Amino acid sequence: MNEIEKNVPAVVAKRLPRYYRYLSELLSSGVNRISSGELSSLMNVTASQIRQDFNYFGGFGQQGYGYNVEYLHKTIGEILGLDKGNSAIVIGVGNLGRAIANHDQFEKRGFKIAALFDIDENIVGKQINGKNVYHTDELEKYLESNKTDIAILTVPVETTQDVADRVIACGISGLLNFSDTEIKTEKGISVENVHFSDALMMLSYRLKYE
Amino acid sequence: MNEIEKNVPAVVAKRLPRYYRYLSELLSSGVNRISSGELSSLMNVTASQIRQDFNYFGGFGQQGYGYNVEYLHKTIGEILGLDKGNSAIVIGVGNLGRAIANHDQFEKRGFKIAALFDIDENIVGKQINGKNVYHTDELEKYLESNKTDIAILTVPVETTQDVADRVIACGISGLLNFSDTEIKTEKGISVENVHFSDALMMLSYRLKYE
Repeated sequence: MNEIEKNVPAVVAKRLPRYYRYLSELLSSGVNRISSGELSSLMNVTASQIRQDFNYFGGFGQQGYGYNVEYLHKTIGEILGLDKGNSAIVIGVGNLGRAIANHDQFEKRGFKIAALFDIDENIVGKQINGKNVYHTDELEKYLESNKTDIAILTVPVETTQDVADRVIACGISGLLNFSDTEIKTEKGISVENVHFSDALMMLSYRLKYE
Repeated sequence: MNEIEKNVPAVVAKRLPRYYRYLSELLSSGVNRISSGELSSLMNVTASQIRQDFNYFGGFGQQGYGYNVEYLHKTIGEILGLDKGNSAIVIGVGNLGRAIANHDQFEKRGFKIAALFDIDENIVGKQINGKNVYHTDELEKYLESNKTDIAILTVPVETTQDVADRVIACGISGLLNFSDTEIKTEKGISVENVHFSDALMMLSYRLKYE
């Protein structure tokens, strides 16, 4: 961990993916410099928060010149660990697993989806977006010989914990969980949840009160 | 808005979907009472936070008796507006749109997905999980005659803003956005985003530092 990374507080770190996404969009639109004021109105956060946050990354804007988009994009990507190239597998190849296997944004962000797993004999042995589908029974064998950082779980609620335990036993320490339940893990395992119905419930709440 | 609802602060409101999910799981496992201590170890939050939060909902636990799971589940559901039954449409019927159309948790949470929209002539006119697929050109006509609370967007990044503008012009004020971009809206429109790649970037960060 270098000096920049050590100094990023957790609350700032949580904002990094969103900054990274905006900086990626700016770069692909050919924007190389942006002022905190412009970024502020684009992202709908205060210019002062942007200035404070970017100071952590050594992204000091210059008066009348603005921020160097490419530098910030690269630096934030490094802090997020995107430059090291995470390898991932997807377990559960229903519609959601297929959507993920076909989701080009993942590879753009440095994640390589190397293999897919399912129990459905009709798709085992086939390929989706150039990735092999293996039987879930082969998980342990696959992980023994293929270094993998992240398991993406899109399996039914009832089997989520069991599948998580199996990949963790094989040494995987990062889980992206799409099931509508939570995974119990020991210390040292990182889990990020994407709960569709939580987002929908929050939307219902906001529709009622906003 | 009743007395209970008026008193729920925003920071507590954000925790409601997770409580609701856990209480749903408890109910379906036949658990009718639970102490703040038991719920604390289940949800991995402090018992004192649970007690504080539940006091807002009038969910006063009794010494040696615990909380009434059914009462809390019902009350939190009402605060979230789940009891009124939100109607939704899905725009974009790729793999992700199909996954959502087939996602039973949504209906369990009181969301009725009434129709699907896509531009692909191969699926327009068909049904998915009993829901009609209409051409996206028919959006305005459909919304004119079918009261709809929420539009779920799983369209490509390039068309997301345009589709959002169209449904908002038809009076929809709640958007659940799955595109890897953000939607600009006027005041009075609620947008919840589900950004897969943000979750994956955060996981990469946590794998690096935790």
